[in-house]
Amino acid sequence: MNRFGRIFRVELFGESHGKEVGAIIDGCPAGIPLAPEDFEADLARRRSGGAGTTPRREYDIPRIVSGVYRGRSSGSPICVSFSNGDTVPGDYERFADVPRPGHADFTSRVKYGGYSDPHGSGHFSGRITVGLVAAGVVAKKILAGADFSTSIVSAGGQSDVGAAVEAAAAAEDSVGAVVETRVRGLPAGLGEPFFDACESLVAHAVFAVPGIRGVEFGDGFRAAAMRGSQHNDPFVDASGKTARNGSGGVNGGITNGNELVVRAAVKPTSSIAAPQSTFDFQRGEMTQLVIGGRHDACIALRSAVVIEAAIAIALADLSLAAAATAPRPL
Amino acid sequence: MNRFGRIFRVELFGESHGKEVGAIIDGCPAGIPLAPEDFEADLARRRSGGAGTTPRREYDIPRIVSGVYRGRSSGSPICVSFSNGDTVPGDYERFADVPRPGHADFTSRVKYGGYSDPHGSGHFSGRITVGLVAAGVVAKKILAGADFSTSIVSAGGQSDVGAAVEAAAAAEDSVGAVVETRVRGLPAGLGEPFFDACESLVAHAVFAVPGIRGVEFGDGFRAAAMRGSQHNDPFVDASGKTARNGSGGVNGGITNGNELVVRAAVKPTSSIAAPQSTFDFQRGEMTQLVIGGRHDACIALRSAVVIEAAIAIALADLSLAAAATAPRPL
Amino acid sequence: MNRFGRIFRVELFGESHGKEVGAIIDGCPAGIPLAPEDFEADLARRRSGGAGTTPRREYDIPRIVSGVYRGRSSGSPICVSFSNGDTVPGDYERFADVPRPGHADFTSRVKYGGYSDPHGSGHFSGRITVGLVAAGVVAKKILAGADFSTSIVSAGGQSDVGAAVEAAAAAEDSVGAVVETRVRGLPAGLGEPFFDACESLVAHAVFAVPGIRGVEFGDGFRAAAMRGSQHNDPFVDASGKTARNGSGGVNGGITNGNELVVRAAVKPTSSIAAPQSTFDFQRGEMTQLVIGGRHDACIALRSAVVIEAAIAIALADLSLAAAATAPRPL
Amino acid sequence: MNRFGRIFRVELFGESHGKEVGAIIDGCPAGIPLAPEDFEADLARRRSGGAGTTPRREYDIPRIVSGVYRGRSSGSPICVSFSNGDTVPGDYERFADVPRPGHADFTSRVKYGGYSDPHGSGHFSGRITVGLVAAGVVAKKILAGADFSTSIVSAGGQSDVGAAVEAAAAAEDSVGAVVETRVRGLPAGLGEPFFDACESLVAHAVFAVPGIRGVEFGDGFRAAAMRGSQHNDPFVDASGKTARNGSGGVNGGITNGNELVVRAAVKPTSSIAAPQSTFDFQRGEMTQLVIGGRHDACIALRSAVVIEAAIAIALADLSLAAAATAPRPL
Repeated sequence: MNRFGRIFRVELFGESHGKEVGAIIDGCPAGIPLAPEDFEADLARRRSGGAGTTPRREYDIPRIVSGVYRGRSSGSPICVSFSNGDTVPGDYERFADVPRPGHADFTSRVKYGGYSDPHGSGHFSGRITVGLVAAGVVAKKILAGADFSTSIVSAGGQSDVGAAVEAAAAAEDSVGAVVETRVRGLPAGLGEPFFDACESLVAHAVFAVPGIRGVEFGDGFRAAAMRGSQHNDPFVDASGKTARNGSGGVNGGITNGNELVVRAAVKPTSSIAAPQSTFDFQRGEMTQLVIGGRHDACIALRSAVVIEAAIAIALADLSLAAAATAPRPL
Repeated sequence: MNRFGRIFRVELFGESHGKEVGAIIDGCPAGIPLAPEDFEADLARRRSGGAGTTPRREYDIPRIVSGVYRGRSSGSPICVSFSNGDTVPGDYERFADVPRPGHADFTSRVKYGGYSDPHGSGHFSGRITVGLVAAGVVAKKILAGADFSTSIVSAGGQSDVGAAVEAAAAAEDSVGAVVETRVRGLPAGLGEPFFDACESLVAHAVFAVPGIRGVEFGDGFRAAAMRGSQHNDPFVDASGKTARNGSGGVNGGITNGNELVVRAAVKPTSSIAAPQSTFDFQRGEMTQLVIGGRHDACIALRSAVVIEAAIAIALADLSLAAAATAPRPL
Repeated sequence: MNRFGRIFRVELFGESHGKEVGAIIDGCPAGIPLAPEDFEADLARRRSGGAGTTPRREYDIPRIVSGVYRGRSSGSPICVSFSNGDTVPGDYERFADVPRPGHADFTSRVKYGGYSDPHGSGHFSGRITVGLVAAGVVAKKILAGADFSTSIVSAGGQSDVGAAVEAAAAAEDSVGAVVETRVRGLPAGLGEPFFDACESLVAHAVFAVPGIRGVEFGDGFRAAAMRGSQHNDPFVDASGKTARNGSGGVNGGITNGNELVVRAAVKPTSSIAAPQSTFDFQRGEMTQLVIGGRHDACIALRSAVVIEAAIAIALADLSLAAAATAPRPL
Repeated sequence: MNRFGRIFRVELFGESHGKEVGAIIDGCPAGIPLAPEDFEADLARRRSGGAGTTPRREYDIPRIVSGVYRGRSSGSPICVSFSNGDTVPGDYERFADVPRPGHADFTSRVKYGGYSDPHGSGHFSGRITVGLVAAGVVAKKILAGADFSTSIVSAGGQSDVGAAVEAAAAAEDSVGAVVETRVRGLPAGLGEPFFDACESLVAHAVFAVPGIRGVEFGDGFRAAAMRGSQHNDPFVDASGKTARNGSGGVNGGITNGNELVVRAAVKPTSSIAAPQSTFDFQRGEMTQLVIGGRHDACIALRSAVVIEAAIAIALADLSLAAAATAPRPL
C-alpha cells in the first residue's frame, strides 16, 4: 500500500533492479506548465548530495509517460518514469538468511513471505525515492508562491557537516544528520484540527522517506523543556506574524502564514564498509557480515531533497483540500 | 476533515461547549467484547492526569450509541458519545480579535471564515480527545496480545516530572514534557515501505493530538548524532530480537517484533495565568491579555493516554490491513 | 465499513432498535445556514411516503449534535442524530435460523458471525436511512442552484402507481417501483473519466439504499436497444444543451450541464403479510414463515427521498472535488 | 481522480495517442503467480470483440514494469504498461469547437479548461481500458475459486446479436447491447450494508467503463414490475441456495453464496460513419459532422471483458476487506 493524498495523490512503483521506477501523480489541476527540464534541479540535488556521496551513476532522466499535453498538465494522471540502468548484480539473496543490520531484509521476508525482490533492496531501495522527488516537483508547481529551502543543520551532532561526513567516511563508517526545511509564502488556512492537521500530513509524508527517525516542527523537542511563557508565541502585527515562530508556522493543525519549519532526523547509512555482526537465521548463530560496494557516508545529503519533496506533496494536497472546502459566506 | 484509518476508521465529532463529543469507530471486527466499563481506566487517566492538572469535573461517562450488541461488537459502526456537562460560559468571542498565543483563535478564523464555535475553543478543544481515548480502547482490544505502557520521561527538561510541574504551577506558568509509549507483543509485519510505513501512520495519528511538537522512534533525534556502527542494531537470535532496539521496533516501515518505542514532545499548556502580550487585530496594536479560569500546568499529564490511544488506533488499522494482504503461498 | 465521499463525507450509524441512529457529515464548508427545520420537508417525505405506507410513528426529530454554530455550519463535523422511540420488541432471533426471504438474515449471520443485532434488522434496517436523508439535506445546501425533483414513474409495471400499490396491499402482497430523480441547474464539469465518473459515484451512493436492483442514466437500458444514430444526442446551442438528453446529463463521466436523469429500480417490500416458504437451517428442512406486524406495500414510496438524498451526497462530493482541481490557466 | 479500491487498488494512466497506457495495481498479496501470458486471453477478448469490431491493430503486449519477482507478485505495486504503437494522427482539435455527439469533447473542455489531450480522445479513450483489463486479470487471481462468465445477451433489443451488429454496420450505424456477467463460486460474506454494499462497489466499477448507461443485479429493473410474493427468493437448502436467485447473489449488500448476476447496458458506439448534426461553438450554429476512420459497430463486443474486469476488481477489493474484518469469536 503505497499511495498518499486525498486530492493530490501520489503512488510510487518500482524496484531497485527492476525495469523502471516512478510515480503516478493524480489530482493535479490542468494547465500547469510541466517539462522534463523542470525535474532536473531537484533530481540533481538527489543524485549528487554533495561531498561524501556515492559516485554511482543513476539513470535519472524523467520520462513523462502521461498527463502532460503541450507542456502543461492535462488533468489526467501524470506518470513519470525512470529507467533503471546500471544495476550491478550482487548476492542479495543471502541477506534473507543473514539480514543486514538496519535494513528491511528481515521484515520484508516476514511481511511478504519471501516473495519480495531482494536485489538492491527491491522496493525498499532509496532508488524508489526518485519518483518521490518527481512528485515533489509537481507539488511545488501547485504551491505557487511558496518558497522551499532545505539544509542539513547538523551531522553527527556537529554543525560542520562536511567535516563530520569526511571523518565518518575515513573511518569506513557513516553518520546521521538533521535536515531542516523551511517553506515561506504559504497561505494561512492549510490543514484542519485532528487527523488532517498540517503536522499529521507532513509527518506522514516525511516518515515515508527511508531512514527517518524523528520529525519535529518549530521548537520541536525543545518545547518539551520550555515553560509556557517562553514557548507561547504572540502575534505581533496585522499580517499574523508571530514573535519567534516557535510553533513552526502551525496553530491548531492549521498553517498561520508564518514560515513552516520542519526538521527530520536522518539515521546514519545502514550499509557501511566495516564488518558487522548479525544473526544467521539459517545456521542459528551470530556471524560477521561484510557489505561490499560503495556506500554513502551520510544518506541525509541525498535525502534532503526527498524530504523536501515529501513536505511539498503533503502541502499540495492540503492546499487543494482547502480550496474544496473554503467557507461559504452566503 | 477529521477521520483516520483505512480499515479501522475513526472519526471525531463535537465541540467543547456543544451537546456531546464522541467518536464513530468503523471497521471493527464483530465479536469483540466491549462494555462501558472497558473505557473507564483510560478515561480516568485522561481525566486526572495526576498532580498539577485542573480539578475541572468533566462528564466522562461513555454512552455506547451503536455497534455493540449483547456486550460484543456487532460489526456495524460503533458510536461512543459523551455529554458535555459543566461548561462554563466565558467571553470567548473576544479571542477572535485578540487571539491567545499558542491557540487556534487566529487560524480557525482564517480557515472557517469566522463561523467556527469559539466557546471553550470549540472543535479545537482538548475536550474532543475524549472520543480519541474511547477509540483507542477499542483499538487495543483488536490488538490482542499487545501491551501498552506510557510514561512521561521528562518535563521542563528534568526527569523529576512532579517537581517540574509544581514549580511551573507555582510560577503561574506551564511546562512542556516528553511522553514515551512502548508497545510490547506486536507481531512482526505491520506496515509497508513508503506511505504506509508504520512510522508514517503512527506519527500521523500522534500529531493529531493537540500540542504535539515532535515525534520520534527508537533512537529518534539522537540517531542524527550517531555513527552507523553505533546505530545499526543487529539481530541477535532466531526470534528476531535486536541488540538494543535503536530503530524502535521498525525496519523499512514494517514492525520487526521488537518493542515499538515512540516519543512525543508535548508543548507547555498555552493558557497560563500570567498576563501575556498579543496583537489586537481590531485595534491594530499590541495588548495585554489575561486568560481567566484554571489551567493545567502540564497538558502532557493528560495527553499521555491520548497519545497512547492515537498509537493504538494506527496500529489497529495496520494490523487489519496486514490481515487483508497476507502472502498467499499458492 | 460505512462511509462515502472523498471531501464531503458521510458516515451512518445506528441500529433499528438501538438508542439512536444518525449520520456524521464531514467536509461541509463553513458558513452554510442549517437549522433543524431544514430537515423537516425531506424527513416528512420519508416518513409518510404517501398512500400505502405503514402508519408507524417514527421518531424523526433531528438533533444537531455538533458542527453547527449560530445557525450555520462551523466547519467541524456535523453529527445529526435521531432517537429510536417506539421500537416494538419481536422474536427477531428466530430469523437467524429461519431467514426471511429477501432480508439480510442469512448474510448478516455469515458476515458478522452471529454477533449482529437482529432486532428490527439492526443496522440493515430502513430506519438507518433517516441519517442518509439528513445528510442529503446538507448536500443539497452545498449544491446551491441545483433543483431536485423525484417521482415514482411506475409501480408493478404500471404508470398508475396508486392503483398498483392499493392492489398489492389488498392482496397482502407488495410491489416494486421505478424511482426517477431529475437534477436541474448542475454546472457542467462534475466528475472525471473512469473511477470518479459522475455515474460511478451516483450509482455507488444509490445502491447503498436498501432494496435497489438497478440504476440507469438517461436512456438507460433502452440505449442497449438503440442505434447510434438514434442515441447520439447532439449539442444544439451555445449553452451546451443537447437535443433530447439521452445521456442523462453526463458525457465521459462529466456532467454536461443538462438535467441529470437517474432512475432506480426498487424491489417490492420483502416483508409481506402472506405466508412464505423458507429454509429452516436448524431443522434442515423447508418451513412456512409468517412475518407479523404492519408492512409497507411499496417501499419505493418512502425510499424515493432516500434515493434523492444519496444522489445529492454524491453530487456534493463531486462539486467540492471539482472546486479543488479547477484548471489553472497560469 | 482515477483510482478505485480500498485495499486492492487500481489506478489507470495514459492517453490514446500518448507513449503508454497502463495500470498500477497496489494491495495485491504477495505470492500470486503472474506472468505476461496470464494477460493474453482477456486482452485477446478485448482486442477482437468478435465479428463487427474494428480490425485496428493495437499494441496489446503487457509489460510488467514492477511488482512481480520470479513469476509471483512480490507485494510491491504492480505496474503493467502497454506501448501505444499505431496511433494515426487526425484532426482531433476541431472537436473542441465542433463536439462529436456522445463523446466527451464538450465536457473535457469545460472540465480541464482546454488543456486535455484531444488526440484519439486522449485519456477518455477506450484505449485506456486495456489497463483495466490487465488489473482485472490480477483481481481474478486473488479471487481463487470464482468463475467468471460474460456474454452479450442482446444487441439492438434482439437476442441474435450477430445479426443486429451486422445490420447496424451495413447501415453505417452502430447498436447498443446488454452485457451479462455471472460469477460462480464467490463465498458468502462479501460486502456490507450501505456504502460498501457489494452492488455499490460493483456498480461503481462498472460505470467507470466508458459507454455504460445502466447496471442491474438479478431481476434488475424487472423487479420494479413484480410483486413481493414473486420476487422474494427463499433459501431452499442448507448451503444457502435460493430458489431462483432473483437478488443476483446479494442480500443486504452482502454476497449470499449464490451466483452473482450483473447486467450492464452499453450504449451504441458514438462514432458512426453516417453524417451527424452538432453545434459549432465557434461559429455559433448547427453544422454537419463526418467522423472519419473505421468504427466498431457495437462497442459492447469489446467492452464485455472490460466490464468483467471491473467487476473482478470490485470483488477482489471486497474479498480482501472481508479478510481484514472477519469476526473474532474470542
